[in-house]
Amino acid sequence: MKERDLMSILDYETVALDDNDNSVVIIDQTKLPGKTEIIKLHTAQEIWDAIYLLKVRGAPAIGVTAAMGIYVLAKGIVEDMVRAKGVEPDYENFYKEFVKQKDYLDSARPTAVNLSWALNRMDRVCRQAHKSGRTVAEIIEILGKEAREIKEEDIRVCQAIGENGLSLVKPGDGILTHCNAGQLATCKYGTATAPIYLGQERGYGFRVFADETRPLLQGARLTAYELYSAGVDVTLICDNMSAMVMKNGWVNAVFVGCDRVAANGDVANKIGTSVVATVAKRYGVPFYVCAPTSTIDLNTATGEDIKIEQRPAEEVTQMWYQEPMAPEGVKVFNPAFDVTDHELITAIVTEHGIARAPFEDSLAKLCKK
Amino acid sequence: MKERDLMSILDYETVALDDNDNSVVIIDQTKLPGKTEIIKLHTAQEIWDAIYLLKVRGAPAIGVTAAMGIYVLAKGIVEDMVRAKGVEPDYENFYKEFVKQKDYLDSARPTAVNLSWALNRMDRVCRQAHKSGRTVAEIIEILGKEAREIKEEDIRVCQAIGENGLSLVKPGDGILTHCNAGQLATCKYGTATAPIYLGQERGYGFRVFADETRPLLQGARLTAYELYSAGVDVTLICDNMSAMVMKNGWVNAVFVGCDRVAANGDVANKIGTSVVATVAKRYGVPFYVCAPTSTIDLNTATGEDIKIEQRPAEEVTQMWYQEPMAPEGVKVFNPAFDVTDHELITAIVTEHGIARAPFEDSLAKLCKK
Repeated sequence: MKERDLMSILDYETVALDDNDNSVVIIDQTKLPGKTEIIKLHTAQEIWDAIYLLKVRGAPAIGVTAAMGIYVLAKGIVEDMVRAKGVEPDYENFYKEFVKQKDYLDSARPTAVNLSWALNRMDRVCRQAHKSGRTVAEIIEILGKEAREIKEEDIRVCQAIGENGLSLVKPGDGILTHCNAGQLATCKYGTATAPIYLGQERGYGFRVFADETRPLLQGARLTAYELYSAGVDVTLICDNMSAMVMKNGWVNAVFVGCDRVAANGDVANKIGTSVVATVAKRYGVPFYVCAPTSTIDLNTATGEDIKIEQRPAEEVTQMWYQEPMAPEGVKVFNPAFDVTDHELITAIVTEHGIARAPFEDSLAKLCKK
Repeated sequence: MKERDLMSILDYETVALDDNDNSVVIIDQTKLPGKTEIIKLHTAQEIWDAIYLLKVRGAPAIGVTAAMGIYVLAKGIVEDMVRAKGVEPDYENFYKEFVKQKDYLDSARPTAVNLSWALNRMDRVCRQAHKSGRTVAEIIEILGKEAREIKEEDIRVCQAIGENGLSLVKPGDGILTHCNAGQLATCKYGTATAPIYLGQERGYGFRVFADETRPLLQGARLTAYELYSAGVDVTLICDNMSAMVMKNGWVNAVFVGCDRVAANGDVANKIGTSVVATVAKRYGVPFYVCAPTSTIDLNTATGEDIKIEQRPAEEVTQMWYQEPMAPEGVKVFNPAFDVTDHELITAIVTEHGIARAPFEDSLAKLCKK
């Protein structure tokens, strides 16, 4: 498959800006794979909902959506103030509202560091521009440029992760992945899927196993969808089948994405990741975490310090189904993520290189690059 | 909860005989927990379908259904022959048809040993009765008695497994179980749930975690349903959450059922069982397999020799859902069971006692009892 073909795998962008309409344009991932529905987010509520309801998901894509979102909202703040008072607002009034909107977006999901990372970066740019004497109108322009730059960086970062990841596998390998750390979780290539897509371009002929990833089935609905669309040899399995495919000798490497990497190498990622890591350890399969350095949080010492989002019981008991899947009223534990102990992780693959144990040192070094 | 209350947990029997109507009466478990539908099986096709389509499932319940089923069919064979020729058939003609029907039922599912075990037992009884000079009419009566005896034995066996299993845990313990090895998988008490029900009678206050068990959700639909109905403190989790609840220290023991135990202690059970066992090993949680000795197959040397049933892709991609859960046409691997290596198993709990490693010796001894 040529690069041109690869680039047309998905005929839409995961996240984009529409400046004419002042909106963030996303594909509603809750509708995939049945329907490809492009939606526009204009208001803070719409952006928050899109993130909370997983219409857009995946740590990098959430970061880009938040950056583009706060830019769209910043433009809106100015327009509203101009409409109300007839003049451009002063910085203090603008910034007060900007922070309010930023904090609101930041509350949509707690686990992925990219959400607050992207919003804090936009905030820093805003304050710096003001400090260097820019007008509010100029600041808006700078914010737009920054949001676009975050997206471009994401694409470059994913490509670099892909190159580094590809060095760890060989043609014909079996690769297992969990959840969706794919193109749909980023702006292009994905993180865990980046080595797969680059390998596909180069005729590596990988055999990929996609965990369906309960409860929201991002693996079945998104990863199987995007890899299958790209012509990759992908086989869908239920999460509880990983031991069997590994025991059968079908898997040479596991690649997963991540939502937050602690300083000691513990990794928060989609619920079930630590199960895959435990099983991989038993069967001697290397377990690789693909992580942009933006997801490495040196301020979080270990996985113990990562807040794990709990989500509604209905995701397990009712969502998607015509009939109830469980008795009404039964207790449900529904954590969206879990933490994988660093000792189960073979390596963490970033855009700046590959970190191995001891992770305290290797991650700190990579983050300085 | 008093024994009387416990006995009324489910106001129907998993499998029963209706002699007036010459049918096997089961609850259609594919409709649970939404609807309690009692159905009657008259023909070989209906019985085969009920087993294949998991309307009745669980190794012991399948065995009882097959035994009652072949009895119902045997009666039917005689009735048909009497209708056609006006006289009771001779044994040879009857037995030829009997074996045909028996082999047909035996083909419904390959993994659980109880299906062929029960059918072979009925076959043996049939041949012995003939050898000792019984008429075909008398043989039919003997087959009915045997089918009922298999059911009564199942209840006694489950109760004994419960007593033995209960000796391994203490009040207040957290117990995790996978799939449904419950009352609905047997004729009463269940196997993996037997210690839970007996503990419930005696005020042990267990906290139970039920894996939902993809793809067919027997854990969510059946185990959560029957335990919740019985007033047990049960929490439903997705299969990929087992590592998190164990890491949190919430689980003191895992109890699972099984479909076949090989001579070396390898255990075939619902897909995902070996994942739970691997995770339990990592977190130091004892992993107990509850197995009537009828599921111990000393003729199968190791798990390698157990045939694993593969089931249709649609169970993973479409069943239950309003919208497709995966892209149309994607490859799916859907094994119904997996094999758990004996080295991951702390003990195998039978009605005759508890087997521990080395299992070759301990299982052989138990089977002699």
